Amino acid sequence: MQYRMSELFLRTLRETPADAEAASHSLLIRAGYLRRAAAGSYTWLPLGLLALNKVTAVIREEMNRAGFQEVHFPALLPKEPYEATGRWSEYGPALFRLQDRRGADYLLAPTHEEMFTLLVKDLYSSYKDLPISLYQIQTKYRDEARPRAGLLRGREFVMKDSYSFDIDDAGLEVSYQKHRDAYQRTFDRLGIKYVIVSAQSGAMGGSASEEFLAPAQAGEDTFVLSEGGAANVEAIVIAPTAAINFDSLPAAQVHDTPSTATIDTLVEFSNSNPELRIDRSWSAADTLKNVVFKLTNQQGDVRALAIGVPGDREIDMRRLEAAVYPEVVSPFAEEDFAKHPKLVKGYIGPQALGLNSPSKIQYLVDPRISVGSSWITGANAAGKHVFNLVMGRDFQADGNIDVAEVQVGDNCLVPTGKVLELARGIEVGHIFQLGRKYAQALDLKVLNENGEQVTVTMGSYGIGVTRAVAVIAEQHHDEKGLRWPRSVTPVDVHLVIAGKDEPLFNGATKLAAELNQAGLSVIIDDRMGVSVGVKFNDAELIGIPTIIVIGKKYADGQVELRDRFAEQSIDVPIDEIVATVKQLS
Amino acid sequence: MQYRMSELFLRTLRETPADAEAASHSLLIRAGYLRRAAAGSYTWLPLGLLALNKVTAVIREEMNRAGFQEVHFPALLPKEPYEATGRWSEYGPALFRLQDRRGADYLLAPTHEEMFTLLVKDLYSSYKDLPISLYQIQTKYRDEARPRAGLLRGREFVMKDSYSFDIDDAGLEVSYQKHRDAYQRTFDRLGIKYVIVSAQSGAMGGSASEEFLAPAQAGEDTFVLSEGGAANVEAIVIAPTAAINFDSLPAAQVHDTPSTATIDTLVEFSNSNPELRIDRSWSAADTLKNVVFKLTNQQGDVRALAIGVPGDREIDMRRLEAAVYPEVVSPFAEEDFAKHPKLVKGYIGPQALGLNSPSKIQYLVDPRISVGSSWITGANAAGKHVFNLVMGRDFQADGNIDVAEVQVGDNCLVPTGKVLELARGIEVGHIFQLGRKYAQALDLKVLNENGEQVTVTMGSYGIGVTRAVAVIAEQHHDEKGLRWPRSVTPVDVHLVIAGKDEPLFNGATKLAAELNQAGLSVIIDDRMGVSVGVKFNDAELIGIPTIIVIGKKYADGQVELRDRFAEQSIDVPIDEIVATVKQLS
Repeated sequence: MQYRMSELFLRTLRETPADAEAASHSLLIRAGYLRRAAAGSYTWLPLGLLALNKVTAVIREEMNRAGFQEVHFPALLPKEPYEATGRWSEYGPALFRLQDRRGADYLLAPTHEEMFTLLVKDLYSSYKDLPISLYQIQTKYRDEARPRAGLLRGREFVMKDSYSFDIDDAGLEVSYQKHRDAYQRTFDRLGIKYVIVSAQSGAMGGSASEEFLAPAQAGEDTFVLSEGGAANVEAIVIAPTAAINFDSLPAAQVHDTPSTATIDTLVEFSNSNPELRIDRSWSAADTLKNVVFKLTNQQGDVRALAIGVPGDREIDMRRLEAAVYPEVVSPFAEEDFAKHPKLVKGYIGPQALGLNSPSKIQYLVDPRISVGSSWITGANAAGKHVFNLVMGRDFQADGNIDVAEVQVGDNCLVPTGKVLELARGIEVGHIFQLGRKYAQALDLKVLNENGEQVTVTMGSYGIGVTRAVAVIAEQHHDEKGLRWPRSVTPVDVHLVIAGKDEPLFNGATKLAAELNQAGLSVIIDDRMGVSVGVKFNDAELIGIPTIIVIGKKYADGQVELRDRFAEQSIDVPIDEIVATVKQLS
Repeated sequence: MQYRMSELFLRTLRETPADAEAASHSLLIRAGYLRRAAAGSYTWLPLGLLALNKVTAVIREEMNRAGFQEVHFPALLPKEPYEATGRWSEYGPALFRLQDRRGADYLLAPTHEEMFTLLVKDLYSSYKDLPISLYQIQTKYRDEARPRAGLLRGREFVMKDSYSFDIDDAGLEVSYQKHRDAYQRTFDRLGIKYVIVSAQSGAMGGSASEEFLAPAQAGEDTFVLSEGGAANVEAIVIAPTAAINFDSLPAAQVHDTPSTATIDTLVEFSNSNPELRIDRSWSAADTLKNVVFKLTNQQGDVRALAIGVPGDREIDMRRLEAAVYPEVVSPFAEEDFAKHPKLVKGYIGPQALGLNSPSKIQYLVDPRISVGSSWITGANAAGKHVFNLVMGRDFQADGNIDVAEVQVGDNCLVPTGKVLELARGIEVGHIFQLGRKYAQALDLKVLNENGEQVTVTMGSYGIGVTRAVAVIAEQHHDEKGLRWPRSVTPVDVHLVIAGKDEPLFNGATKLAAELNQAGLSVIIDDRMGVSVGVKFNDAELIGIPTIIVIGKKYADGQVELRDRFAEQSIDVPIDEIVATVKQLS
């Protein structure tokens, strides 16, 4: 194909759009790939659609190569299957719900586990039919509370979702690994840099699960690199601190600590009173911070949960949400404190907490709060703290909870070793071992070799297709614009006519036809009344990896070949240019 | 690609599904192309998706060839643009409406006129940018009152919708003609037989408009073939009957006609009373039937309309709806008669009707009720009719309305000549000259050559993509199953292994690889434990046009080549088969 800039439906912009939160968002708008249609949804302009189709084609090829079969479901679906699995209500306000003209309930599907399960149940009935993996590339809907960063978190987006069906757990392992391999090949071909992190499966309700995170500043997910591998913060397991002997420790003492409702003011006060400690100064790590939350279960019952963490750490809300799922976390508000007069806000101590305490509030502590560790903590009275309060001697907890923020240097059991790095990434793929949750809820059984009905075990596997376009833009750009990897470039060659003379236009037309002949698609910048400088700027912004300039030296039989990645430019004889470019792509 | 029947996700069915209303519906389900997902929506199985993709590819190629540029909009859209054009309410219950988590109103778009208009307004501002034609291939939603016949009338379906933008009417004519040509090329390539009929534009609110109707028994649209061309019944204009002299006609007379509330009983009564007429017997065509309807306008105001037609014709509701649009028709119910005591149900006569009559009900008559024509009609009293009531002498009408059913032999002005045939067809394409309705409502203006702001004029053009798959199936099948035209066949060759011996399987694998090498995709029926008869039946049902049978004669170096259309079978030497098949496709 040939696309003439004089006719192409596109306007490049010099300015970053006001709402752009990520480089990919800004550049895809500025280079004329996308326009905003509504909150969290975008219209694809011609060049954008070409890029999206390239990405889609690579994904489809790799899925087919792995032997997965493509199907396609509607997006608008009846409530009943999602009610059978509980997701109709579990999804909460993130699900777009509507009614048809008869008042029947429908939803716009966020994923299709239920429908795939029912389809396999519809067609298959025997172990001989399994294993099978099916996929679709389809538009999905999520009513995000905060759509952001263009394609990175939208309300209407394209996903590739696959589902595997196996007779037993060993089969599921094989299917899972096939998908994992196919995903690695896919992302490699797309030019997406990624890490595979172990992850909690959250609302999907599965067991083993890994995420493909593309490292990027604009990412919403924090991941952890350790000596043993990478993981999502939700999946990290911190090594517990060993118990120590507390026989020689001083007794606990309550002190007046006026105006010390925060950890900082408490540490400052402690260090300004030398009689409290002489061997070293106190730090926030010596304090024990107790935070109370409200948890709501699926039946709507509410309970309180108190969590103790060393004062130098915050509680990581993602880790907490994952740890208490399916209960949902909310803050402990003033009216909740009013119901628990034993809790003195800012001065809560372990003695007031625990299922066996008068408050009856469950009390879980960070694994670093080991037996024999000694703490400054609240004395359950305004303006008072207790010093040298020893775990296992002066207080007990109902158990451990591992939800403190992860820091570089932490010892972790999963993945093993010291935490080396904390980085941000964009989730571009996710693979789950779902197990039998959906098959059980929707009664997907097949006959096994012995003629018995057995429940099928499933996996579910997703790639964010529109998001992948943004990830590529996020990982491959410079200050001048986009830089498409050749595997997904919307067009192979950007041909700039650097001049106004007719021979240049004729030469460009001839060259474009030859490039087409060789299977290469071309943008020709044939605009009149546009300066060569503007043409070059637009070419760099649009980001086609191969730029050919047909200009002054054309009369001498030469054109200029620019590489958008290498940032180098060479002169090539006109009769060698097609072969030279063909070799690149 | 190769698809092994032993692994392909598909189950063929011997029985016609209970809900199948059309051959295409039944066969696409039975051959394993589709499964029903919900009322009016379908899941595409692997073979179905291949067929859909072939159809989509042909449409895309022809749109690109015509110079139209592809974009892609979301399906979930905010209310505001559709409110600006009035379509938010005009669409009535056929529009799927929903709210997001903030309570903002959204819709699932049935077509995208508004969004395309706004997109061009967003990017373009000068006559130099025009003309431009943009299109998308995208999923659409309509909450049909009665989804039917599988893909023929669904609630979620794929459409190709194009929009043209021109500075003036002459430009619109050119763009319209380009689309008309592109549609003809598209349907020709798809193997769809069609007629182009002039059509009313209905709810789209335009002027010139034509439909591409695919003749098929299962069609919902009746079209008319005349000496002058084809038209939708809504677009037919009947030639008025000339006035005749009534000087010598007998005077009108009222007679008691007990128990004659229907036309049939009235004709029977009349003919059993020879004193009423002696020259010939009466027929239904001598009676004048007056029917009253309720019309509701867009503001919700209701009025009555009485229509007089010859008693041998029904009123065609489609013609009536088109004629009174944007008013909406509903029946005149018992309570409405109660409000008009002058109207005697079953015996309504013209004397009680008309804007100047006591009832003040507008009275419009069929063009055949010409001045001087004489009728038997109601006498506005139970059990009484009036005979020899002459139009222009004894009664008047407020005007003409051309909404009676069209019959073969009718004289029509549009298209000209005698009606030769009434046939049923499926609307598979529709082209409209929209004019400035949307551009005006959404303020799409550009600067003209004189620097003045002028409103752009638009066209809108649709192809039902999923419907086209059904139309192809509807037009190309026999009692054994589907017969895909080679241009859209999901797979090029169906290779049947007619036997159980290993050499046949090895031979098939080798041949499939060679066919792949030659660019041909193949289904291999490698199922064990399935009889050759079942394999042949499935091959015929699935409808791949080229079937190769590798069986007994394989040992002698021969395979059998069957043509699903020609119904003939020849033996071909194994070393010639690839070239032979390659020539077919």
